[in-house]
Amino acid sequence: MTKSNDPLVIFTPSGKRGNFPVGTPILTAARKLGVDLDSVCGGRGICSKCQVQPSYGEFAKHGVTVAADALSEWNAVEERYKSKRHMLDGRRLGCQAKVQGNVVIDVPPESQVHKQVVRKRAEARDITLNPSTKLFYVEVQEPDMHDPSGDLERLVAALRKDWELPELEVDFSVLATLQSRLRKGGWKVTCAVHLGDDYVSPRIIHVWSGYYEGSIYGMAVDLGSTTIAAHLCDLRTGEVVASSGIMNPQIRFGEDLMSRVSYSMMNEGGADEMTVAVRTGINDLFSEISEISGIDLNLIMDVVLVCNPVMHHLFLGIDPFELGQAPFALATSDAVSTRTKNLGMNIHPASRIYLLPCIAGHVGADAAAVTLSEAPDKSEDLVLLVDVGTNAEIQLGNKDKVLACSSPTGPAFEGAQISSGQRAAPGAIEHVEIDPVTKEPRFLVIGSDLWSDEDGFAESIASSGITGICGSGIIEMVAEMRIAGIVDGPGLIGSPEQTGTTRCFLDGRTHSYMVFDGSADSGPVITVTNRDIREIQMAKAALYSGARLLMDKFEVDTVDRIVLAGAFGAHISPKHAMVLGMIPDCALDKVTSAGNAAGTGARIALLNTEARAEIEETVRNIHKIETAIEPRFQEHFVNASAIPNSVEKFPILATIVTLPDVNFNTGGDKEGGRRRRRRG
Amino acid sequence: MTKSNDPLVIFTPSGKRGNFPVGTPILTAARKLGVDLDSVCGGRGICSKCQVQPSYGEFAKHGVTVAADALSEWNAVEERYKSKRHMLDGRRLGCQAKVQGNVVIDVPPESQVHKQVVRKRAEARDITLNPSTKLFYVEVQEPDMHDPSGDLERLVAALRKDWELPELEVDFSVLATLQSRLRKGGWKVTCAVHLGDDYVSPRIIHVWSGYYEGSIYGMAVDLGSTTIAAHLCDLRTGEVVASSGIMNPQIRFGEDLMSRVSYSMMNEGGADEMTVAVRTGINDLFSEISEISGIDLNLIMDVVLVCNPVMHHLFLGIDPFELGQAPFALATSDAVSTRTKNLGMNIHPASRIYLLPCIAGHVGADAAAVTLSEAPDKSEDLVLLVDVGTNAEIQLGNKDKVLACSSPTGPAFEGAQISSGQRAAPGAIEHVEIDPVTKEPRFLVIGSDLWSDEDGFAESIASSGITGICGSGIIEMVAEMRIAGIVDGPGLIGSPEQTGTTRCFLDGRTHSYMVFDGSADSGPVITVTNRDIREIQMAKAALYSGARLLMDKFEVDTVDRIVLAGAFGAHISPKHAMVLGMIPDCALDKVTSAGNAAGTGARIALLNTEARAEIEETVRNIHKIETAIEPRFQEHFVNASAIPNSVEKFPILATIVTLPDVNFNTGGDKEGGRRRRRRG
Repeated sequence: MTKSNDPLVIFTPSGKRGNFPVGTPILTAARKLGVDLDSVCGGRGICSKCQVQPSYGEFAKHGVTVAADALSEWNAVEERYKSKRHMLDGRRLGCQAKVQGNVVIDVPPESQVHKQVVRKRAEARDITLNPSTKLFYVEVQEPDMHDPSGDLERLVAALRKDWELPELEVDFSVLATLQSRLRKGGWKVTCAVHLGDDYVSPRIIHVWSGYYEGSIYGMAVDLGSTTIAAHLCDLRTGEVVASSGIMNPQIRFGEDLMSRVSYSMMNEGGADEMTVAVRTGINDLFSEISEISGIDLNLIMDVVLVCNPVMHHLFLGIDPFELGQAPFALATSDAVSTRTKNLGMNIHPASRIYLLPCIAGHVGADAAAVTLSEAPDKSEDLVLLVDVGTNAEIQLGNKDKVLACSSPTGPAFEGAQISSGQRAAPGAIEHVEIDPVTKEPRFLVIGSDLWSDEDGFAESIASSGITGICGSGIIEMVAEMRIAGIVDGPGLIGSPEQTGTTRCFLDGRTHSYMVFDGSADSGPVITVTNRDIREIQMAKAALYSGARLLMDKFEVDTVDRIVLAGAFGAHISPKHAMVLGMIPDCALDKVTSAGNAAGTGARIALLNTEARAEIEETVRNIHKIETAIEPRFQEHFVNASAIPNSVEKFPILATIVTLPDVNFNTGGDKEGGRRRRRRG
Repeated sequence: MTKSNDPLVIFTPSGKRGNFPVGTPILTAARKLGVDLDSVCGGRGICSKCQVQPSYGEFAKHGVTVAADALSEWNAVEERYKSKRHMLDGRRLGCQAKVQGNVVIDVPPESQVHKQVVRKRAEARDITLNPSTKLFYVEVQEPDMHDPSGDLERLVAALRKDWELPELEVDFSVLATLQSRLRKGGWKVTCAVHLGDDYVSPRIIHVWSGYYEGSIYGMAVDLGSTTIAAHLCDLRTGEVVASSGIMNPQIRFGEDLMSRVSYSMMNEGGADEMTVAVRTGINDLFSEISEISGIDLNLIMDVVLVCNPVMHHLFLGIDPFELGQAPFALATSDAVSTRTKNLGMNIHPASRIYLLPCIAGHVGADAAAVTLSEAPDKSEDLVLLVDVGTNAEIQLGNKDKVLACSSPTGPAFEGAQISSGQRAAPGAIEHVEIDPVTKEPRFLVIGSDLWSDEDGFAESIASSGITGICGSGIIEMVAEMRIAGIVDGPGLIGSPEQTGTTRCFLDGRTHSYMVFDGSADSGPVITVTNRDIREIQMAKAALYSGARLLMDKFEVDTVDRIVLAGAFGAHISPKHAMVLGMIPDCALDKVTSAGNAAGTGARIALLNTEARAEIEETVRNIHKIETAIEPRFQEHFVNASAIPNSVEKFPILATIVTLPDVNFNTGGDKEGGRRRRRRG
């Protein structure tokens, strides 16, 4: 019963306020007002999660004066915690400090249940912590022969009474040890409770004897065709505790997705082999992260995984056969939530895994994760979202509508099928400039901060050497070759005569460009062949055509901004991408990188279960465009192979570069740039 | 749109009626009126489950005349079914026969979804068929690149549209084969759908290509300390297809429950050993039943299991340690529903198992199953329900209130700890009469229809011989000895002089009674020793005291009727039980046997999922009495060892028997009948 002449308690930053009788603990007042103040022990002075910051003095804006004795005196419980743990001066424990007079109480971020998890990018939206599984400490009534009931039922009753939790079920794995843990803890236990979602009802998934000091964890996994990355997250703080990545062990069955689909078609049991490989790989990765972090695998209670549709099917044990042919039917497109045990994962036996929904047969859960992270559906301006990989997943939209498609860019952007191409690793050329007059290149190599024409460069790369050109390097290389007049608009490399440099040399029926000749020192010879140019032309034409198709569907000719997602996207130079005509015309300062947006989306879904329902709804509303059956896509593709394909389409180029008007065609290889790559 | 001048369709036996336009299929009319008419194929003329019986002519009570052409003509689909399958003359397929005029349609029991499953006992309530899992045939939309969605999502949409099922989930085990089965069936499939309950949301658990002709099955298991019995039930018809039983393989760890609890206390890993043993036994039993019936184990989609609390814990993998000591705390008392995989069962991977709730630490899921079968909570008159085993579970109640307790009768009633005791098997004496004048016995042996003094008896038992006395036999034996004056009220066997027969002989410090002396032919010597009498006295005193305690709590001195449950209960002679004072005074024609009521309860819960919520609610409302802490139980026990303990308490005896007033006490063994057995 509160009365208006009782002391007034005002909480900040929420501004919630109410009158409470003298003697009311601050934690109780917070609960009654619905203020977000954390507690694991339920006010028993054990967990110290309910730390608050009282303020004293005159508060004109709240209309109160807080006296020095507005709260009960600092007590022994608080003294014990302050001496044993981290507790800032001036802080009080909400469960110990009791109302004595009007008081203003600030709840610091770390004492909020639904903390904001800070993201590094300033423009990125915050993640609100709201994990599937939380910890609750309870004291359970002992058994009584006069009123027999099971230990579990008394535990559930205690959780309901103390925490207002619903009637909980219990995971089967809890039963075997429940009785001994209750007794060992003197009928005091800490429970990990999965609070329930669309797939499971609320349930107890772990019980510790007594008060459990530690935390519980989740894993956000980005399962790519080439690499698997995982982030171990603390479900209480939202922090990433440890991360690691491994090569996808499926690579031995084929570098790209289509070759893996082919492997399963050609080999009896091939899909099963690949399923075992990827599950084993994930278990190995989890074990590694467990070792790095010192966190027991059994403390991992939730997993969110994102991946492309082929990986999705192979990981779930579904033959990806249907994804290899029209109509590219997914076995299931909705989100998948299941026990990790069904997937052979060696973590907590009651843990669950959630896979984000797939958008379409070629636009997977990874694309949905990008959507979740970058939220085009919440954008005021029209954003083009491109995740470049072997397929590019492209989204275009704003808060009114989002369109999505996939475009078969092939592996050229990843450095594959490029004569001197390689993965982004020390020794790889990642940035290039070509002098338009001398046609001489200078470049930056991963592992060194010096340009190749700077003093000390050779020493700086002594350990790695110069080994090849990575994906972002090849984009710059081709764009710089075009700017320097070494390559013409249709994509032919000129002869030494045409270009005026002996770096261009006849290489079979066409010419190549010598980037680096280490042969004198028995080192590598790094060239760009005309075939390399063709590969890049096809890849960029596919990417551009997909984006352009979505713009047609949206009935727009320009976009407000472009976000490049993915590790590759983070390294692309917007200027060079524009020169190549990879992306539609856009002011360069409106082209940004979102980093590993798929991984971030996985982390958001892991830390905030509400984001799961949200992305499921969003994905349902995305308009899916299948490029394979869109005649306009073919048209765009055919018209997009030139560098750039049309100056009219790229007015921005006029402000950043002058493209020489060269034409090296001597009659051969006319169709070279127009071969169509099969979808991969 | 129905109009009042459309033809009138009247369904019997429901009496539901409505006007439907000419051309409306009868199945459609039934669905619209909510008439219970079965169909698996949804009206596609495939399953023939919707057979109905039209009636023609004048129906005064319905106020209609049904013309001969009230339904559309017999068609080719019906002709095909009639030629290929069972279809009685005059029957029509509800999906093919269309309304042409007013018509009266009878839905025969076998065409009802919620069929009544007939029980053999006339007084037993029917079982309404309402299983967890049903079959649904659907035609699924093919994938479309213009509107990409997963195969599963289109399957779910089809089930929702055609069957008005909710948004279904899918069991993980379905995913791997879903795409190939949909295509193999030409986008027509039959689904087994678990319709959901308090523990799982509705979900697809199996998919067959095309129309699946077969049925799906469930297993009702009665897991006893000594034997495990299982009934394979057809979930579409409710019929028991096959039954079998095996010895509980845990017997090698101890005959009775307490010795198994001790085994687990004394042996590291002992509980786990017993868990493995019982689970292996159940798998073996299931395999045997699968072989007998020819039903694939993968067609078993649901299991209901009942057992006592110790078996319950051991089966679930919980150490029964706490059940061996006060306060006899169960790990969980509520019903348990989990995947059979968690229990290592080799049946359908998505199948679930349901264990009925336990009533208290000594009154298990088996007792709850007896409650479900015998429904004391729905009885108008006051019923005493006794399930006799090593413990007797006793319930007393009517629709106002039900009380329950367990009483430690020990194994004497099962023939154990009786010198010539044995299990009920060929060769065991099961019925006895003793001539009050000559004191000579005659008996019936299991396996023969002849009394031992009839011609041909010796030949009739040639294969088994006479091997011992079974549980129900020992009850009759002791009662007959009392009636014949061979045993006195306190339980002493008289000397030859006191009884006047040399069948009584000095056997150590007390006398024994010779039942059968086969020693001349090297056969067995079957006697009843005074120690046997003591064992029976303790067992019957425990049973009586438990019943009496409940009567005290209910504040009654008599009960209206007594139901004896269990295999043993089926063989007890009410008269002899009354003479012994096992059960409270009651008219003999009000003492009936319910047979294996626990097994029947399991079958009810298997076939009708609504019965599960019902028994959970009933069990919550049962008043549990713990005999171990009730002083009145001790008092009753001490006073109940005499045979009978008090003629005043058994007025019924005066009408059925005259008990001789003998007293053979010569000063020794005064306390023999008063030893208390530890709880088992």
